Amino acid sequence: MIIKIESDKNEFIKDVSKLQQKKYRNLTNQYLVEGPHLIKEALQAKVLKKLFFVNDIDFDFVDSYQVSEKVMKKLSSVESLQGIIGVCEKKSQVFLSDKILLLDNVQDPGNIGTLMRSAVAFGFNTIVADSSVDFYNDKVIRSSQGAVMKINLINMNILDFIERNPDYRYFVTDLRSNIFLEDHDLSYNKIGIILGNEGQGVSDDVIRSVSNSLKIRIQDMESLNVGVAGSIIMYEVYKRGIKL
Amino acid sequence: MIIKIESDKNEFIKDVSKLQQKKYRNLTNQYLVEGPHLIKEALQAKVLKKLFFVNDIDFDFVDSYQVSEKVMKKLSSVESLQGIIGVCEKKSQVFLSDKILLLDNVQDPGNIGTLMRSAVAFGFNTIVADSSVDFYNDKVIRSSQGAVMKINLINMNILDFIERNPDYRYFVTDLRSNIFLEDHDLSYNKIGIILGNEGQGVSDDVIRSVSNSLKIRIQDMESLNVGVAGSIIMYEVYKRGIKL
Repeated sequence: MIIKIESDKNEFIKDVSKLQQKKYRNLTNQYLVEGPHLIKEALQAKVLKKLFFVNDIDFDFVDSYQVSEKVMKKLSSVESLQGIIGVCEKKSQVFLSDKILLLDNVQDPGNIGTLMRSAVAFGFNTIVADSSVDFYNDKVIRSSQGAVMKINLINMNILDFIERNPDYRYFVTDLRSNIFLEDHDLSYNKIGIILGNEGQGVSDDVIRSVSNSLKIRIQDMESLNVGVAGSIIMYEVYKRGIKL
Repeated sequence: MIIKIESDKNEFIKDVSKLQQKKYRNLTNQYLVEGPHLIKEALQAKVLKKLFFVNDIDFDFVDSYQVSEKVMKKLSSVESLQGIIGVCEKKSQVFLSDKILLLDNVQDPGNIGTLMRSAVAFGFNTIVADSSVDFYNDKVIRSSQGAVMKINLINMNILDFIERNPDYRYFVTDLRSNIFLEDHDLSYNKIGIILGNEGQGVSDDVIRSVSNSLKIRIQDMESLNVGVAGSIIMYEVYKRGIKL
């Protein structure tokens, strides 16, 4: 039986809508996803817990609620409603993959989501970022195109992580480096790629703690977008791994 | 002498603020850039025509206006004012570079700007897109990080462009292709890379008109962000050109 909810004053709906805030996502270990594409991904990844929709849907889900437009608007974080929203649970972190992406103060949610998408596509199944980064922000989730459900996400200080995991070979991206990406041997069993802030790059503390640096060869521009730069590096690591 | 303008009702300011609209940008062949970084780029590229600022600046520019916060707000298209805005003129298109990027219905301004930035960085100094694409939209300009001033931008139907320029070797990105990027010989003197819409990819008409297709090898995701995919392909073409 599908439960119907008409009023956006409904206490249950009010509670669910609190998941738009980082505080409640952290408290409950849950987050919201919006639109048919992400709902499909959530079903496949077996992380969907509750489903809210306006018009009839063509599949069964046990914890389902048919809601009014008003309720959907209350739950949604975008202007143009997609008519379907789900509550997902964060996956617990059980492993560290051999290839890891580390984000040192990357700020833009679109960049973080894009990097997640590329990370999954190139086999970097763990992302580490400082605790200030909210991996479950709605913009991050949208740009990740569902990658958020397929990847191991760790909030930890980058320096602490490096210190506790010395068996990885870390590479820091640094525009002042004199070694180009293509000149590096990237065939390590365990590799960590460190990307920095959109404006300032990787912080000096982190650069000092890592012995290898690299940059991508470019012309006529100061730098690439960090989502692009990180993706190109992960592409190179992945491609060389395939060829071995 | 620097002219001072206090009122946002000033007719001249009203006229300049119209450049926030595509219609007036097309009419006047001018566009707005915001923030010290882009103003510096505009000065270097010699495309700056007028300068508006709130606080004193440490360089001379002939057509300068010191304005109130209110006026700056009227001219600005972002929430957090950067205190400096310039009017730039579009560069006239005089040449076709040997490496060209073609956008077949790429929609997101952030993606278009990011691709512009990567295109300049990897020597793709011409971008072609349908007339619906506005290269001088403020979001495009921001993500281009000044690349918009360094590149040849052409609004033309993609199919028409291909027909009129048969001396280029065109490659279409297509998830259904069975040839991977790294398996292609990309060492052509004249090469055109065609990217498609974020959701639908390159249109069937364009795919049919081009004999070469390629895709990037990925796992566990349907696709990459189009800005990332295009940048990886341009990186490969550039890298192989450098090695020759």
